[in-house]
Amino acid sequence: MGSLLITGISTLVTNDPQLGEGPLGLITDAAVVVSGDSGDSGDSGDSGDSGEEIAWVGPASRAPAADRMYDAGGRAMLPGFVDSHAHLVFAGDRTAEFDARMRGLPYTAGGIRTTVAATRAASDEELSAGVARLVGEALRQGTTVIECKSGYGLTVEDEARLLRIAAEHTDEVTYLGAHVVPAEQDPDTYVELVTGPMLDACAPHARWVDVFCERGAFDGDQARAVLESGIKRGLVPRIHANQLSYGPGVQLAVELGAASADHCTHLTNADVDALASGTTVATLLPGAEFSTRAPYPDARRLLDAGVTVALSTDCNPGSSFTTSMPFCVALAVREMGMTPDEAVWAATLGGARALRRDDVGRIAVGARADLMLLDAPSHVHLAYRPGVPLISAVWQRGRQVVS
Amino acid sequence: MGSLLITGISTLVTNDPQLGEGPLGLITDAAVVVSGDSGDSGDSGDSGDSGEEIAWVGPASRAPAADRMYDAGGRAMLPGFVDSHAHLVFAGDRTAEFDARMRGLPYTAGGIRTTVAATRAASDEELSAGVARLVGEALRQGTTVIECKSGYGLTVEDEARLLRIAAEHTDEVTYLGAHVVPAEQDPDTYVELVTGPMLDACAPHARWVDVFCERGAFDGDQARAVLESGIKRGLVPRIHANQLSYGPGVQLAVELGAASADHCTHLTNADVDALASGTTVATLLPGAEFSTRAPYPDARRLLDAGVTVALSTDCNPGSSFTTSMPFCVALAVREMGMTPDEAVWAATLGGARALRRDDVGRIAVGARADLMLLDAPSHVHLAYRPGVPLISAVWQRGRQVVS
Repeated sequence: MGSLLITGISTLVTNDPQLGEGPLGLITDAAVVVSGDSGDSGDSGDSGDSGEEIAWVGPASRAPAADRMYDAGGRAMLPGFVDSHAHLVFAGDRTAEFDARMRGLPYTAGGIRTTVAATRAASDEELSAGVARLVGEALRQGTTVIECKSGYGLTVEDEARLLRIAAEHTDEVTYLGAHVVPAEQDPDTYVELVTGPMLDACAPHARWVDVFCERGAFDGDQARAVLESGIKRGLVPRIHANQLSYGPGVQLAVELGAASADHCTHLTNADVDALASGTTVATLLPGAEFSTRAPYPDARRLLDAGVTVALSTDCNPGSSFTTSMPFCVALAVREMGMTPDEAVWAATLGGARALRRDDVGRIAVGARADLMLLDAPSHVHLAYRPGVPLISAVWQRGRQVVS
Repeated sequence: MGSLLITGISTLVTNDPQLGEGPLGLITDAAVVVSGDSGDSGDSGDSGDSGEEIAWVGPASRAPAADRMYDAGGRAMLPGFVDSHAHLVFAGDRTAEFDARMRGLPYTAGGIRTTVAATRAASDEELSAGVARLVGEALRQGTTVIECKSGYGLTVEDEARLLRIAAEHTDEVTYLGAHVVPAEQDPDTYVELVTGPMLDACAPHARWVDVFCERGAFDGDQARAVLESGIKRGLVPRIHANQLSYGPGVQLAVELGAASADHCTHLTNADVDALASGTTVATLLPGAEFSTRAPYPDARRLLDAGVTVALSTDCNPGSSFTTSMPFCVALAVREMGMTPDEAVWAATLGGARALRRDDVGRIAVGARADLMLLDAPSHVHLAYRPGVPLISAVWQRGRQVVS
């Protein structure tokens, strides 16, 4: 396939302040050129790492010629969403638990064990089909990069199995053996497993190491042991921190140089200061608060302190069974004090920062051609039109995957 | 087209307690038969009033034969959503106003006038295309009946024009000349117009009469005058009541036998008692509170008092630019104390009650064949999977319109 010129873009979100107006680098009446394959792959379905990149970005009036044309028809274009926190390899659902909670029962971490039992009992094929289904669902809603964690196996064999399955669907694979202590085990013995034989089996299949640092899951010392053991094996740390209560997770994340501290719902001033002084992104997951009727994290406080904020779905069958980044954007604006611009940035380039990726989350020359068109003239409509499926076209690595 | 047998329905919401379990009349492993045309219309696009109805409902094991089969593949089936409150005939959008509000400005009724100016300037064709677009968007999200109000014309000629355009797209047309007092007019003079010449021009095109009873719009006496004049002309009253503040709207609605009191956000105990003692449905519109960062109505209080509750989108460009009934269901569960079952009922049969319709909102023999399939095994997923586009097939009057 040759190069592609996309014109008729009413508003283009580049996320590059050098290219356009404000932090989103907005260009009105814009055009984008996607480079062609270096080889001559034709229109085979294999996107692989074929290297389709953004070759040109700017006002339509100055656009160069290309081999093919696409008329965006006055729609807004954004980088694909980067969903940096999702738990996609599991079996079973927890509809009954959700329904019961909405009738008044509280949410605790214990429900994870329900999914663990169903996941252990499922075949590789069932689990892989489940991931494919959710990744496809997310893609149709504009998510072109999605992270995927283990954490519903909790045995050496099952955790490694979940990571291998996750790696069939994404490059962003996270070892979360320390999701919860399995029902049958002593916590310290389990941490020895997670930092020893389980890590040995899992490290080759993952980029990231993660731990759920929370009352009822793993305390600060245990979380430190898990992350440090992963770092020694070349994994990069990220952490579930301060979701259900105050705790040591956020400051541990900053101390260890974690890419992201995820949830950040209960923060002291010292936690906020730590995030502001370090390189760790605060990833907020309002779907979890939505589906557990919990108080939302305060994005405004973090932004005002200069913290880099990402938005993500936390997609999982217990506390946030959504794949919808548009929903998270709308929720962040309604509930967390973010402006529409801030929420859109956090759901795109913010997610890329949380995954330490430079090639996605922005529309600039050399970036991967992950693009989406909204059935709307402006990115603000993601918040202005909540719940409405607005994603009308998606390109991933330059290939149109939703139309 | 002959009769159609739909099998493989994991959970069927009939909304008929005689047919299944609980208030939703749930049947598991169910089947539905849709009757064929009485005439031989072939597969022409004209659904019109062709009379396709539900001919049989029950467990799949006892289903009768039919001319055609459809396998629902283990998905949940519900009646189409009935959206009983929407403002769809308008021009322009108010993205900038929304964006500014999310940066801190308050919502007032005054913004309506922005839309009035754009609407007056638009051609019939532009306005009709806008309605068609929103009705189509709603249909793809499962809404098979949608009400549509005037109210952005505010002159005799423009209000009648908006009603004629609305009637091209729905039978549920509402005269809302009393939406707001136009900028250039004295309130009492305007009420004389609304209850006199404008009513004369509009009554032939509408089923309902409505008024925005609120500070900044119309007070109790004015609202009474508007509704009583409409009743005299054969229109049935409904009312925007108690949205932004306490007021006389709800009790006026009950006194006049209105079909519905819409919003019901600020209610005294006397208001709740009035609703519980009358036949007026309380229609809650959480999209408006979502998009104006206002406190939500308390559905639990109304349900516990025995009030019939409906859910609706309030789709309009100022305070609630969503067509998504699934979003409203999820929001009602998160924010208004409704259970998933109650919210699903309110969005289907509740909406039908608010429009005094017996033929829609339920799946029972003789009802109109307005059906939707979810990409999920249970109706609870509408709340459990917020933001995810779950509507995978829709039939309207027996004809499949979304697949």
